[in-house]
Amino acid sequence: MWGMIATWRMAYEGILAAKEQLEINGTCGDAVETSIRWVEDYPFYKSVGYGGLPNERGIVEMDAAFMDGNTFKIGAVAGIVDITNPISVARKLSEERFNSFRVGEGATEYAMLAGFERKNMLTDRAKKIWEKRLREMARTNISPYDGHDTVGVISLDMHQEMAAGTSSSGLFMKKHGRVGDSPLAGSGFYVDSQIGGAVATGLGEDLMKGCLSYEIVRLMGEGLEVQQACDRAVYPFNDLLKQRAGKVGAFSLVAMDKDGNWGAATNVEFTFSVATANEQPAIYLANPGPNHTTIIQPITQEWLDAYEKRIQAPV
Amino acid sequence: MWGMIATWRMAYEGILAAKEQLEINGTCGDAVETSIRWVEDYPFYKSVGYGGLPNERGIVEMDAAFMDGNTFKIGAVAGIVDITNPISVARKLSEERFNSFRVGEGATEYAMLAGFERKNMLTDRAKKIWEKRLREMARTNISPYDGHDTVGVISLDMHQEMAAGTSSSGLFMKKHGRVGDSPLAGSGFYVDSQIGGAVATGLGEDLMKGCLSYEIVRLMGEGLEVQQACDRAVYPFNDLLKQRAGKVGAFSLVAMDKDGNWGAATNVEFTFSVATANEQPAIYLANPGPNHTTIIQPITQEWLDAYEKRIQAPV
Repeated sequence: MWGMIATWRMAYEGILAAKEQLEINGTCGDAVETSIRWVEDYPFYKSVGYGGLPNERGIVEMDAAFMDGNTFKIGAVAGIVDITNPISVARKLSEERFNSFRVGEGATEYAMLAGFERKNMLTDRAKKIWEKRLREMARTNISPYDGHDTVGVISLDMHQEMAAGTSSSGLFMKKHGRVGDSPLAGSGFYVDSQIGGAVATGLGEDLMKGCLSYEIVRLMGEGLEVQQACDRAVYPFNDLLKQRAGKVGAFSLVAMDKDGNWGAATNVEFTFSVATANEQPAIYLANPGPNHTTIIQPITQEWLDAYEKRIQAPV
Repeated sequence: MWGMIATWRMAYEGILAAKEQLEINGTCGDAVETSIRWVEDYPFYKSVGYGGLPNERGIVEMDAAFMDGNTFKIGAVAGIVDITNPISVARKLSEERFNSFRVGEGATEYAMLAGFERKNMLTDRAKKIWEKRLREMARTNISPYDGHDTVGVISLDMHQEMAAGTSSSGLFMKKHGRVGDSPLAGSGFYVDSQIGGAVATGLGEDLMKGCLSYEIVRLMGEGLEVQQACDRAVYPFNDLLKQRAGKVGAFSLVAMDKDGNWGAATNVEFTFSVATANEQPAIYLANPGPNHTTIIQPITQEWLDAYEKRIQAPV
């Protein structure tokens, strides 16, 4: 068996590329890295890597993490700049016993010294969107914060080993040095090859309050089916946070167990991408359902056409 | 009822100071901040705040976090420099709905703009220790990494509200930008006023693999006594990590439940400090016991005298 699940429609092409590796006995770690690099490289995805929307100063600061489900080794970066593929830096750091989570200037310098490719990650398109938002902010009172769509991937390979990865340029217009959940173990990602894995996307400031990726994996470890584990972790915490804090940001999680079964839970409309040895690669639409359940439907061609148009529309 | 528990003997005087606030109806948030500021300010504690040992370049980079157990609001900083009290910055950030976790230059700039006191946090003593270690490293092959003693505090006030905080200068000789578990929710700290809280100290790179602070609180929420929750979270994970990764760094956790009961678990000898409405402030020594238990004894005068001598010994 092999399988992959990832947050958002944007992960689909990356999953297609990684699928070819998994089918010929590639490793889960390579599959995670391949799929996320694809998203980082694609200029029209405005919340990850190249083309990601910048912080308040116009700088694209990125977060990424990698976790090995056999050994629990974790590598992570936050606030890294000018590096083409943060996921590759995170994966490389996961091999270090010490200093495996690096932030800010230290993260960027590590990547430079380790020979990772440099690139100005701000596209003309992203710059235009940023300038437009600056003008809107000067004129109105709107909260500038949106666009926190992290790509998160769980992969299972034919050796029954698992890995997880995340990559994000974080909140659009974030303050310099702001970090969300993506590089934080337990919040943004968690994986155990003997159980399964989960990854998150949404408002990092709220996601880190619940350790939801860890909690989904833990519930699978207790014997829950993967969809049950997603529902049981996400919806009660959503209610609890609403009760305690008054409001809750968007959050969406996907998970896969060690046998390639998968699930998702979300408090907003959300898409995700899946491929396994048993099913054709597909994109799904998830919505919160009644009584702490999740409604999952195949995506429609209409939705996909509208998406394609939207992400490439003139600014 | 009120109560406080904190990692290490070094937290004792801070707890004495915060105790006076709690006794006259002070808030758990103030108690956490007061106690941790005391540790940050004391020049002879070489793993927190002023006097903390620097990174490989001689710069004291600090991590801190604050969590409100009522609302789950979290504020955190990582890799902050030249700021007298990182815990106060973290607490202030916890009031922000967005951008509440800030790293590197962005964290320092936030603190400057918010008016926090600046200070060169490198003492002459810490600099001497650093220079000595550099010489040793040039001569031998020893791993430079030790001294990862985070101060972590859980506080319960007379309104039955709880808060948690951490502060650390991280691994001695760490690479620029390295971050441990201290500012990471679920790993370094977690607290829910309706259940209890837990905080961690030890090798952050390993602690973040287990989400142990979250797990202890979760187990208390399932009805376990606080000491049981500590033992049940820490020792099985210690075994699992040893099995999967071959080795495990030091880690030690303390916890307090919403009624002021407390516990600890650790895989190395470890001290902690406690004060509650029912018991005199005290320092305890904890060691791993047989069959996944923890041996907790009052500290001896002999131990304290040796400690006092050690921390002030000539370099």
